[in-house]
Amino acid sequence: MTQVCGNSKIAGCSFSVHPMCNDFQDMIMTSLQQTDTSKVWMKTDHVTTTVRGRLEHVFDVAKAVFHHTAVTGVHAAFQGTFSIGCPGDPTGDVYLDETSNVMNRNTAAVKQAVTAKFSLYPLGGGKYMETIYEKIERMREQGISVTPAHYSTRLEGDIHDIFHGLENVFKETEAGGSSHTVMTVSISANSPSKKEEEE
Amino acid sequence: MTQVCGNSKIAGCSFSVHPMCNDFQDMIMTSLQQTDTSKVWMKTDHVTTTVRGRLEHVFDVAKAVFHHTAVTGVHAAFQGTFSIGCPGDPTGDVYLDETSNVMNRNTAAVKQAVTAKFSLYPLGGGKYMETIYEKIERMREQGISVTPAHYSTRLEGDIHDIFHGLENVFKETEAGGSSHTVMTVSISANSPSKKEEEE
Repeated sequence: MTQVCGNSKIAGCSFSVHPMCNDFQDMIMTSLQQTDTSKVWMKTDHVTTTVRGRLEHVFDVAKAVFHHTAVTGVHAAFQGTFSIGCPGDPTGDVYLDETSNVMNRNTAAVKQAVTAKFSLYPLGGGKYMETIYEKIERMREQGISVTPAHYSTRLEGDIHDIFHGLENVFKETEAGGSSHTVMTVSISANSPSKKEEEE
Repeated sequence: MTQVCGNSKIAGCSFSVHPMCNDFQDMIMTSLQQTDTSKVWMKTDHVTTTVRGRLEHVFDVAKAVFHHTAVTGVHAAFQGTFSIGCPGDPTGDVYLDETSNVMNRNTAAVKQAVTAKFSLYPLGGGKYMETIYEKIERMREQGISVTPAHYSTRLEGDIHDIFHGLENVFKETEAGGSSHTVMTVSISANSPSKKEEEE
């Protein structure tokens, strides 16, 4: 029995999009269909959708699926676990030969305010807390609103800026020598309780 | 700027419950109100609810909130990050003086089938993969249906058995010497696509 994760350089994400409305099923299917997934391996089961491939396509596809749901105005949540370098992984389900230009640039024209909580887990080494603090600071340097929270760091801004920031810190953690990196992200869009907080 | 996590022995969970229906807001509020949270520190913002305290109460409260939503029959998702031992934490928001008997035993009478994906992250040490494999095997020994998935391990069974199994492996990882342990869990109840998979 082995846990199945992601081989070094094969990035991946297991994510869910939760539209809080009665026609959630149509909305999820439509958002998946509107997304160009030609450069990733993808499989959806009833808990999560998993994508694997080059890091830039994994972030591009995860963002696009959530963006398509969020811009309808429905209250929606995104939950994703990004991973690279897991030692226990099969080498299958790989799309590393694709070129690097991303396929869902069309979403960039429509902004969408979101609030996120992210946690970074560089595994296998003793200096992981330093890396975490450094990457939280990197988020701030990228112009993203950063506030501390228990078990995560809270980010506020436009969906494109947030995903861009997350992709950068994930990539930089891996490039900085972390052999196995996991990052979890919870994102909320169009929350009615956010409006109440602001009023 | 420090990331805020959980001091050693203070367990905690940052979680969300997502009922996929139009009256999600009432349903979440009702589920929180139906839960006895007197033995944990709790705070809800528009992304997650955070509970902190003794490990057994953290699991008890997280399960009870999701249970109250799931037993209505609505399709609902739970997403939680459990944490213990984060070196970067404040000592506040602690309810460690409470007695150990859990407050939400009333949920035990009602079974609820769920499918979960869990990932265990013992941080700061090099032998973390051995711990992960061992704890996946422990899930199986507890009678839970276990299948591999990318970036996680899939569990199927009754909500009480699944949460009991998760609490045991989390507790055993910490007791086994892991100084900082994180476990993420995604759970789905009443999924229409699960019914389609089975038909």
